[in-house]
Amino acid sequence: MASKTQSGKAPTGELELIERIRARAARQVGAGLVLGIGDDCALLRARADEELAVTTDLSIDGRHFRLDWHSPEAIGHRTLARGLSDLAAMGARPLGAFLSLAIPRELTRGRGRSWIEGFYDGLLGLAESYKTPLAGGDLAQSPLAVADIVLVGAVRRGQAMRRSTARAGDRIYVSGALGGAAAGLALLEQNPGRARGASWARAHAAQLAPHLYPQPRIELGRLLARRRLATAAMDLSDGLSIDLARLCAESGVAAEIDPGQLPLWPGATLAQALNGGEDYELLFTARPETRVPGKLAGIALTPIGRMVAARKGRPAVALVEGRKKTALAAGGWEHFA
Amino acid sequence: MASKTQSGKAPTGELELIERIRARAARQVGAGLVLGIGDDCALLRARADEELAVTTDLSIDGRHFRLDWHSPEAIGHRTLARGLSDLAAMGARPLGAFLSLAIPRELTRGRGRSWIEGFYDGLLGLAESYKTPLAGGDLAQSPLAVADIVLVGAVRRGQAMRRSTARAGDRIYVSGALGGAAAGLALLEQNPGRARGASWARAHAAQLAPHLYPQPRIELGRLLARRRLATAAMDLSDGLSIDLARLCAESGVAAEIDPGQLPLWPGATLAQALNGGEDYELLFTARPETRVPGKLAGIALTPIGRMVAARKGRPAVALVEGRKKTALAAGGWEHFA
Repeated sequence: MASKTQSGKAPTGELELIERIRARAARQVGAGLVLGIGDDCALLRARADEELAVTTDLSIDGRHFRLDWHSPEAIGHRTLARGLSDLAAMGARPLGAFLSLAIPRELTRGRGRSWIEGFYDGLLGLAESYKTPLAGGDLAQSPLAVADIVLVGAVRRGQAMRRSTARAGDRIYVSGALGGAAAGLALLEQNPGRARGASWARAHAAQLAPHLYPQPRIELGRLLARRRLATAAMDLSDGLSIDLARLCAESGVAAEIDPGQLPLWPGATLAQALNGGEDYELLFTARPETRVPGKLAGIALTPIGRMVAARKGRPAVALVEGRKKTALAAGGWEHFA
Repeated sequence: MASKTQSGKAPTGELELIERIRARAARQVGAGLVLGIGDDCALLRARADEELAVTTDLSIDGRHFRLDWHSPEAIGHRTLARGLSDLAAMGARPLGAFLSLAIPRELTRGRGRSWIEGFYDGLLGLAESYKTPLAGGDLAQSPLAVADIVLVGAVRRGQAMRRSTARAGDRIYVSGALGGAAAGLALLEQNPGRARGASWARAHAAQLAPHLYPQPRIELGRLLARRRLATAAMDLSDGLSIDLARLCAESGVAAEIDPGQLPLWPGATLAQALNGGEDYELLFTARPETRVPGKLAGIALTPIGRMVAARKGRPAVALVEGRKKTALAAGGWEHFA
């Protein structure tokens, strides 16, 4: 079903909440939305020459977010950002988002504004920035807070960027700066008691922003796909070391990167840039003869290394400094496990 | 992402499991699937004259299923059936399914076959029957078992059946027989200790089937939509009394049904047929002059009443027996809450 409570006898408060969400979602503009929340399915429309890109991402309390560290707005924003970033990686434009949310009943109540209203504010705020209508979903009670976000996007036939199509000789690029999300998370971890305090959060807003409010690279992904600049692409959700190893595995190649070339977020360490995860920048490859601009859609693009042939005994990803080569272990993101 | 574990360092057993699921899913046939599990998004393709129907349904342990009552195969089957039934209600053909699964680690292990393998057997068995490829999803560890199923389908532009388009004077129909799922559930509730026993389950297979292995009415829905027989439609997931009230609310009409006309599942009570839920039959309306066949796609279609104008003081749904009219309260399904 496209959004209703599971229970036949939902309490009035919950029904009112759903009606408010529905009313707010109904105001959203989305060129591809034919029918939104309220029926058995939502109806979306792509153009005749387009394929659909679909992605789902689970976020679980204690693992992908922490109710005691993150504001409901940040959790809502991050939940949607994960899904939008997957569309960006394929070069797709968003058609609609679907949210399945299972939460403890107390999060739907509160003096003044409840947790769930803050969550929807964060999610719908980001959705509005990216013209992505919330087209449906599901809502249920659960002792554990779990959010599953689904994004449906559209991309011109044959233009979607994949992980499996990098070739030896390709240059490797990343967008933006790396390590900012991990540096922000480290700051939260050092100040667990203050994390939910509004004044502390305001004072550290710039440092926390990459972690709390990541910006998916939708426009950049669309331009890379449309101009056919990239031979392969993916988003950096789990950390460069593990994500690049995945791209290598899917493409059947190996990678050499120069750590001195990595664009570090101000204050982030090299380890945070390599292993931090959740930067939601794009990682892509391009033929060496392709002229990749230094900036696209306002985002810096930095060459960080090259693809080489996979060989027995050769690490999937190596750090190259002058003549020294070091195997880079996949030290990716383990969330809060 | 389209299926990988959340953790950068998933244990080998989990990665092997994902590889096995991926390999099995890759063998599935689906005319609309361009790219399946393994990239940031899956890619699907509809026809140029089609719209997309998208639905998501959360299933939570203790609420929509019980690990101590239901076999993993039945839980997998039921999870997918809920989503397929929403496509059936719109008249859509399935393009692909996406499963986000959060489960306790012990369910991925076991002497011999683990719980999760049984779950996928049940889900993929049904998926294969309905030519619905498992195109992606997400897998994470969680103290609570939660499954979110997403179905993407396609339906010719303007032909999708909705809840909001019934008119006063329309006849009301249901497919198949009602109350079987509730009768099966009641049998489980009376025998909680034996529910997971293979021999007991085999001896009661016919009585338990509508509850454990419901069949979504995909082909029936497609025919109703294509032949434009129905003015409105939805699936019976929460029980006729509440689902018909929803259809009335969305369409701005009221309903009168004749309880003597309801097609009861053998052994089911009238209360189970009215309030039981999870039958996953179709509820639809048709103009009185439309010739609705007694059977379509092999499924019986039974007229059970008519739509009337909504009026102040008139109940949304009334039972009519001769001259006696009784308001029917929405006594729908509350799952296992």
